[in-house]
Amino acid sequence: MRLGILTGGGDCPGLNAVIRAAVVRTVRSRDGQIVGFLDGWKGVLEGRTCELTLQSIRGILPQGGTMLGTSRVDPVRQAGGVEGVRRALALFELDGLIVCGGDGTLNAAATLAEAGMPMLGVPKTIDNDVRGTDYSVGADTALAHVSHAIDALHSTAESHDRVIVVETMGRSVGWLAVAAGLAGGSDVTLSPEEPMSVQQVCDFIRHRKARGRDFSIVVVAEGARFLPDPDGSVLQMPERLDEFGRPRFGGIGDVLARAIEDRLKIETRTVALGYVQRGGTPTAFDRLLGTRMGMHAVDLAAAGQFGRMVALQGPDITSVPLSVVRAGPRPTSPELLEAARCFFG
Amino acid sequence: MRLGILTGGGDCPGLNAVIRAAVVRTVRSRDGQIVGFLDGWKGVLEGRTCELTLQSIRGILPQGGTMLGTSRVDPVRQAGGVEGVRRALALFELDGLIVCGGDGTLNAAATLAEAGMPMLGVPKTIDNDVRGTDYSVGADTALAHVSHAIDALHSTAESHDRVIVVETMGRSVGWLAVAAGLAGGSDVTLSPEEPMSVQQVCDFIRHRKARGRDFSIVVVAEGARFLPDPDGSVLQMPERLDEFGRPRFGGIGDVLARAIEDRLKIETRTVALGYVQRGGTPTAFDRLLGTRMGMHAVDLAAAGQFGRMVALQGPDITSVPLSVVRAGPRPTSPELLEAARCFFG
Amino acid sequence: MRLGILTGGGDCPGLNAVIRAAVVRTVRSRDGQIVGFLDGWKGVLEGRTCELTLQSIRGILPQGGTMLGTSRVDPVRQAGGVEGVRRALALFELDGLIVCGGDGTLNAAATLAEAGMPMLGVPKTIDNDVRGTDYSVGADTALAHVSHAIDALHSTAESHDRVIVVETMGRSVGWLAVAAGLAGGSDVTLSPEEPMSVQQVCDFIRHRKARGRDFSIVVVAEGARFLPDPDGSVLQMPERLDEFGRPRFGGIGDVLARAIEDRLKIETRTVALGYVQRGGTPTAFDRLLGTRMGMHAVDLAAAGQFGRMVALQGPDITSVPLSVVRAGPRPTSPELLEAARCFFG
Amino acid sequence: MRLGILTGGGDCPGLNAVIRAAVVRTVRSRDGQIVGFLDGWKGVLEGRTCELTLQSIRGILPQGGTMLGTSRVDPVRQAGGVEGVRRALALFELDGLIVCGGDGTLNAAATLAEAGMPMLGVPKTIDNDVRGTDYSVGADTALAHVSHAIDALHSTAESHDRVIVVETMGRSVGWLAVAAGLAGGSDVTLSPEEPMSVQQVCDFIRHRKARGRDFSIVVVAEGARFLPDPDGSVLQMPERLDEFGRPRFGGIGDVLARAIEDRLKIETRTVALGYVQRGGTPTAFDRLLGTRMGMHAVDLAAAGQFGRMVALQGPDITSVPLSVVRAGPRPTSPELLEAARCFFG
Repeated sequence: MRLGILTGGGDCPGLNAVIRAAVVRTVRSRDGQIVGFLDGWKGVLEGRTCELTLQSIRGILPQGGTMLGTSRVDPVRQAGGVEGVRRALALFELDGLIVCGGDGTLNAAATLAEAGMPMLGVPKTIDNDVRGTDYSVGADTALAHVSHAIDALHSTAESHDRVIVVETMGRSVGWLAVAAGLAGGSDVTLSPEEPMSVQQVCDFIRHRKARGRDFSIVVVAEGARFLPDPDGSVLQMPERLDEFGRPRFGGIGDVLARAIEDRLKIETRTVALGYVQRGGTPTAFDRLLGTRMGMHAVDLAAAGQFGRMVALQGPDITSVPLSVVRAGPRPTSPELLEAARCFFG
Repeated sequence: MRLGILTGGGDCPGLNAVIRAAVVRTVRSRDGQIVGFLDGWKGVLEGRTCELTLQSIRGILPQGGTMLGTSRVDPVRQAGGVEGVRRALALFELDGLIVCGGDGTLNAAATLAEAGMPMLGVPKTIDNDVRGTDYSVGADTALAHVSHAIDALHSTAESHDRVIVVETMGRSVGWLAVAAGLAGGSDVTLSPEEPMSVQQVCDFIRHRKARGRDFSIVVVAEGARFLPDPDGSVLQMPERLDEFGRPRFGGIGDVLARAIEDRLKIETRTVALGYVQRGGTPTAFDRLLGTRMGMHAVDLAAAGQFGRMVALQGPDITSVPLSVVRAGPRPTSPELLEAARCFFG
Repeated sequence: MRLGILTGGGDCPGLNAVIRAAVVRTVRSRDGQIVGFLDGWKGVLEGRTCELTLQSIRGILPQGGTMLGTSRVDPVRQAGGVEGVRRALALFELDGLIVCGGDGTLNAAATLAEAGMPMLGVPKTIDNDVRGTDYSVGADTALAHVSHAIDALHSTAESHDRVIVVETMGRSVGWLAVAAGLAGGSDVTLSPEEPMSVQQVCDFIRHRKARGRDFSIVVVAEGARFLPDPDGSVLQMPERLDEFGRPRFGGIGDVLARAIEDRLKIETRTVALGYVQRGGTPTAFDRLLGTRMGMHAVDLAAAGQFGRMVALQGPDITSVPLSVVRAGPRPTSPELLEAARCFFG
Repeated sequence: MRLGILTGGGDCPGLNAVIRAAVVRTVRSRDGQIVGFLDGWKGVLEGRTCELTLQSIRGILPQGGTMLGTSRVDPVRQAGGVEGVRRALALFELDGLIVCGGDGTLNAAATLAEAGMPMLGVPKTIDNDVRGTDYSVGADTALAHVSHAIDALHSTAESHDRVIVVETMGRSVGWLAVAAGLAGGSDVTLSPEEPMSVQQVCDFIRHRKARGRDFSIVVVAEGARFLPDPDGSVLQMPERLDEFGRPRFGGIGDVLARAIEDRLKIETRTVALGYVQRGGTPTAFDRLLGTRMGMHAVDLAAAGQFGRMVALQGPDITSVPLSVVRAGPRPTSPELLEAARCFFG
């Protein structure tokens, strides 16, 4: 058996656990070979690979990021891309390709699978919004980072009368903000799934003040949406575009902080953790998840079951059709949103 | 609505998240009252309580242990215990009692529920061996501790030619050892579910040496069992008893280390993390789990659904009959054991 | 012996270690009494105190912040403030007052000492800029936070071609930025002590790119100053004022990031850790330092040596005249600045 | 300029920072070359080296251990060893050799320096017992590990009535135990510098119980010595020897725990952190220290000042004659011992 593996989209902790497990499973359990493509789909199209052996994966388990590199290149949206992937599979004589990625990368894999290529997906995203799996690789580590930051901020709570706005990642899905707000004990959390007006946010802070709590922590996902205030005004978002011409959401924390400060006349500061959220050594949870998923992907390949995505369902590692990702990102569950609301104000 | 809550058995991180969430849900969402019993069932039988208000739970979310204290007192095994609990429920005018505990504590709750008392269980254990739920409160934090220790030990790997034996908790179930071995990258893991002979352990270490790896990390659950060696000898366990007259397993790491050292003539050292494994601030995962479980327990009480244990099943917080714990601890899944084996040697 | 203690200025980790040690030393070693003033000098002027006993300090050693609260009130700059402090000392029958603070708080203490009051200083600041002591309480923990964040950012380094600007605290002194840049491995560090032009920063990034390093981490203290570029333009700082009418420096990271992105056309992001830097549990170093300093302050009081500030000098805890703080904040040492430069580009 | 560098004795975190800084300083600031000897003095005698370039040190700053490996080989105690080192210096055309090590390694370097070879020392040890320097590389990280473990143990303090004995490293010097006991809040600490009888230890625990504290944490250095009890009995130490025929002290924690349990009839458990204490990523303090020391060693070589050991003295990196190590390990300072005593019982 000869397999390929790549990591696409934004990097996150736990990808190296997937790679390591896939290598060990292929080489030791299956006596097969495995090739790593560099920089995601880019490396596939350009034929750039690195040999993956038991030697080459030494010491990578605790490392963040991905030893294979990554990119946002999408073979499906690129002229000749699909055929380029097919040629690479033939050229490297691969029986299957393990694709670790989030929404975008897995959608490409789904298309290639439909075009008859032997694709296997492994879900990774700090937003935990890939459908069909309880958890994706990287989400737990991001949650730990944000929760840890909120902890640190609380220790100033008893001393200074301030509002601190913590801006988290999460363009279209607020899982990270909502889960971290719950785990860290935030006082309000804003997510794309649950728009709020600035006035509502301020009311929660005022409510706390009335209860003798002079300090508030507001968590806001970068893609949070705002409702109009009673006077009809809506919070103006920063408007720059990113390298793909998409709106760049970063900066919402500052905008919200200024709005709160203006209305409540309480000094308000922003903490924008940015890439810290998807860096660092993976949590034990993510290493365990990545390891099990990487092994299962190889087992699926050995069984000839392509076109599937590895998934955690309850206590079990299993798989679902790759086409589950067609439905787009999974919004945060109503239960979690409702749990968070219970602690507001 | 008037509820009681207690924590029983060994303490672990995340219990305070359960308590905090139960208080907030009862007081803020349900306009109810909630009473905390001190030191587990002991406090119920002795009528010792503490008032639980929004004020009293401030700052406990990141704290390990349990603000209510705990004990190993079991009302079911004690003369008059069952009636004592019934009297306490009446005396404090409780509509329901939330019982946070592991196997022993929840079995008592199941018995009391069968005797007609309004019991609700919340599973906690660092062994993750409570049936009916994917995860119990405290397991993820223990996993993080052990995995982190294995990480630290690896950094000496490149410099010294030694074997290090890491002894973890786990009397009857090896989940913690097996999961941490996978997450930390151990070279052999011994658990109660998968007995091995000392010779087999030594063979894995020899195998590594033959591959140029002069350093090995052996993880062993305190309750690991050993197979006889070819010459018929079996590793002799330390024999002291604990305060309940049960065999005390602690010390197996030292015994195993000496056996390895004697046979392989490689210097071998032991690390026995002991209570460090169930101390410290809970991981974000455990805080989130504890928070959701504490809230759900209150919701079950409000709905009059007693005799149930809160459970995580896939992405959902749900509940199962308390009687699931009757079947005893859940052994580590074959999939996890098999995954671990793949990295041995 | 009857002592008072207060914490003033910005809070930081390690203050509770000082308080705890002062209480234990006073009560257990000296059979004395100690009173805590709430919210810094504010509590002195308003006569608000809390009793400090062996009971009241339980569990505070690992806590960030200060159990006494703090404020920026300065009795010296306030009409009647000096006499107010004198009255408080008399009212509470204090033999001495231990003042934990940074530059501002200790300057007030120095003035009061000169006015004949029995003052003792304990230096705390995350900028490590108090003269006369090698380290102030809180600096090591802040260093650990920023260094840890830089670590996490590095793990994305191998995957994405980006510049990340990390904005640290440090209005007039860059110790935190410079030390963390060295400990975390930054590629350029900007501090108030060492102005640079945007072009110089960009040159370092270009130099790295030329060496095949497509990723750079730039650390910038919030008070960093900029030199004009060859065309005479200077980076425009954000201009808002804080609650004291002083310029607020926060936001320099964003401004610098935009300037780099505009010139180099490399996507550039900002991480502004903000208050995370002075939150969280103190490092062991800070707990040890705070403990030794708190004890020494009591010993000075017992010896009647007032008007002094506790200091770490080499391996020893000793003291210097409080008047050392008159010379203003201590700039980062040339040796450290030079060490940092060695790794630029 | 052409330099060599080696790391000897037990490994510890921060050594890679020394190596990295020495390489950068040599290559970038001095346009020189630097060679790394593998496995300490062993590699010198066997001529085994690795080339050190800007490329080879990428990513090692946060890594524990030493990229060069280490050994306990001592050229001075070995026939022909001194001449072997001289030959290696000639063979590799070295202008100087940077020797990173503890007591043993630096004593060898001192002897070689006296024999006319261009030696430079960099002190490293988790015991912080090298004379002439306030801190040695690795000590702060070990302190952080032990202190963190004590923290985790405290979180069970409120729930279980037990004594926990934490055994730390420290054969002849107790700095690590004493400093960590202070930073973590232990209730008794035993060190080689301050012998105590088992009865005295038990009295402290009893004293706490009398004050309503049912839980105690006892920290014991592996080389702690015991005084006879009133009945003349002395605690019997475990007697095995290590690979050098020296008594192996590990196990004292268990022996002490059993003695306490036997006398007080309180369940007592041991935590033996072992090698965890010198593993893991270095603290920011150790990275900063190692970086500054590595650079300074190169600067000394460039200035032709050999026969010296780099040292931290107050805020400054400076140097002292290598012969300072002749006086043997530095005992823990009386001030620190006295500070610790203040919290006993």
